[in-house]
Amino acid sequence: MTQMRKDIFTDRWVIVGENDGVQPRDFRFEKFTSGTGFCPFCEGNEAATPPEVFAIRNRGSSPNGPGWSVRVVPNSRPRLRIEGDLGRRAEALHDLMNGVGAHEIIAETARHDRNLHELEIREISDIIRAYIARIVDLEGDTRVRYVLIFKNYGVGAGALTISHPISQLMALPVTPRAVKTKLMIARDYFALKERCIYCDVLQQELKARKRLIAENEDFVAFAPFASRFPFEMCVLPKSHSSTFSRISAAQMENLARILRDVLQKLEQRIDGPPYNLSLHDRPFPRPREGYWKTIEDDFHWHIEILPQVFPITGFEWASGFFYNPVSPEAAARYLSLVPSA
Amino acid sequence: MTQMRKDIFTDRWVIVGENDGVQPRDFRFEKFTSGTGFCPFCEGNEAATPPEVFAIRNRGSSPNGPGWSVRVVPNSRPRLRIEGDLGRRAEALHDLMNGVGAHEIIAETARHDRNLHELEIREISDIIRAYIARIVDLEGDTRVRYVLIFKNYGVGAGALTISHPISQLMALPVTPRAVKTKLMIARDYFALKERCIYCDVLQQELKARKRLIAENEDFVAFAPFASRFPFEMCVLPKSHSSTFSRISAAQMENLARILRDVLQKLEQRIDGPPYNLSLHDRPFPRPREGYWKTIEDDFHWHIEILPQVFPITGFEWASGFFYNPVSPEAAARYLSLVPSA
Repeated sequence: MTQMRKDIFTDRWVIVGENDGVQPRDFRFEKFTSGTGFCPFCEGNEAATPPEVFAIRNRGSSPNGPGWSVRVVPNSRPRLRIEGDLGRRAEALHDLMNGVGAHEIIAETARHDRNLHELEIREISDIIRAYIARIVDLEGDTRVRYVLIFKNYGVGAGALTISHPISQLMALPVTPRAVKTKLMIARDYFALKERCIYCDVLQQELKARKRLIAENEDFVAFAPFASRFPFEMCVLPKSHSSTFSRISAAQMENLARILRDVLQKLEQRIDGPPYNLSLHDRPFPRPREGYWKTIEDDFHWHIEILPQVFPITGFEWASGFFYNPVSPEAAARYLSLVPSA
Repeated sequence: MTQMRKDIFTDRWVIVGENDGVQPRDFRFEKFTSGTGFCPFCEGNEAATPPEVFAIRNRGSSPNGPGWSVRVVPNSRPRLRIEGDLGRRAEALHDLMNGVGAHEIIAETARHDRNLHELEIREISDIIRAYIARIVDLEGDTRVRYVLIFKNYGVGAGALTISHPISQLMALPVTPRAVKTKLMIARDYFALKERCIYCDVLQQELKARKRLIAENEDFVAFAPFASRFPFEMCVLPKSHSSTFSRISAAQMENLARILRDVLQKLEQRIDGPPYNLSLHDRPFPRPREGYWKTIEDDFHWHIEILPQVFPITGFEWASGFFYNPVSPEAAARYLSLVPSA
């Protein structure tokens, strides 16, 4: 029999498959292909992008020339633009504003054919360093309430046009509803228990171990109890922190390690499925948002990795429910070395 | 410049593309193919499905034999089963229950190769009649709080395994969050204005006409102001009603007409994209749900049609935001005979 499970962080129900075994025949996806032809994100082609806003460069190299390991540029076809006012206004019954914010591309490496899971720990640490530099810079822009960093790997995860290893950053003038929902639930939980909901779940997962996928000194990766997607993973720092940009150099290296570890597992055991990866950080503290006063206690930053191997249908769109044929316990057994029950 | 638009029914923000023109080069989808080989939903193969729970049959035909125009059967691999108790319980911090409910397949026609938009009005009316019969029957099961009816057309909309024209029904033991969100917002709006939010938007769309796609005596189809998907459509009854199953015979025929009309437009003008269609009805009145007392006033049933021509990425999954490159005004001009501005 299937189970209906409620995600504790979002109050979202998920129907989890009755077959506890992994059934690769249910999955259908295109494998990642690195593409050919001219790529504006490759080293030597810097002139083909807008001028860089951040880069980690070799000593002596010049901005917008070769000699970098990570390079951040504005998207040349941005969904939100940095110029102008928000112009919040009504149109008849509706609310709208101008598409103001930022949309940046983070080239994760100068080489076209090396993907995130194939990089050195030092290189992945540099990507994390670039994320932090951009978040800290954008926090100074009071129009921005939230910075969302995400990665689409493979066509099935929406990466239709760019095959170079990249992440994307969007600076948003509103806090996304998905983030607000998590914040509100975490706030209510803290108000009731005076404990962080993420810390509680983390402790429980470390104790139960049946959904654990990877662990090191600073981080844990597990399959969430109510995973929406087969092989979904959540990466959480072990010590409580609301704010991604405050991680230490040692933590940064351990984050790079656990990310590479779990992405390599996906590559090796699920044959390189498309995935979406996203950073769930706290919103910027802005006085208009009521939650900013208790956010340090309430929220615990984390990373979500959502493999896209099973289709989303009218059921999911209409209900906000999900159906996931692979139980998180089966996913964890498959991905990790958790011994079978 | 792009616009950020807020959907009035859900409070969800959408970034709407700055290009007001339709750009088919941005779209990538597989066209529907009707498939070959043995199909359990074709006339004559009735023995290959579980026994029917409802059918519209020719006089003199027998249950589970040929001679039907619409036939409803339990899914042979159901995501929720009708047997057993919910068994709501805790597992450590988490909530779970058994996968109890119903999962049914509505074969829309006996013929494999005729799709919804190719059927006669009489045949589409019969499908609507089947929906109503199943909803009314399931309302008697007190474990069920909501019946969701949806259709996945084409591989890109998640129809991986069945190419026969079908809809699906899921009877759920909880009201889906997406429905609850709409209800709460509609309730707050009614509390403030003593008017239905859907009636207000409907009147405005009929007046402005710039997002109108189709209209008849009883129904209107328009591109929602904050459409998440290119060519998204909402079909709404003109007279206020919370409850789909109460439509009259005349309304039923006009619903069949407008559905066929808008699906034919998709087929002809967008070259037959995958789509998800879903019915958003009121939940069953159950005393545990606080909103049931005012639901008749607050809610207005409707149908959503979501073409799947543009990818969902990490941005959407992480934020709950959407990016839609085609403005609803451009979509309406493209799909309908609304004259260009």
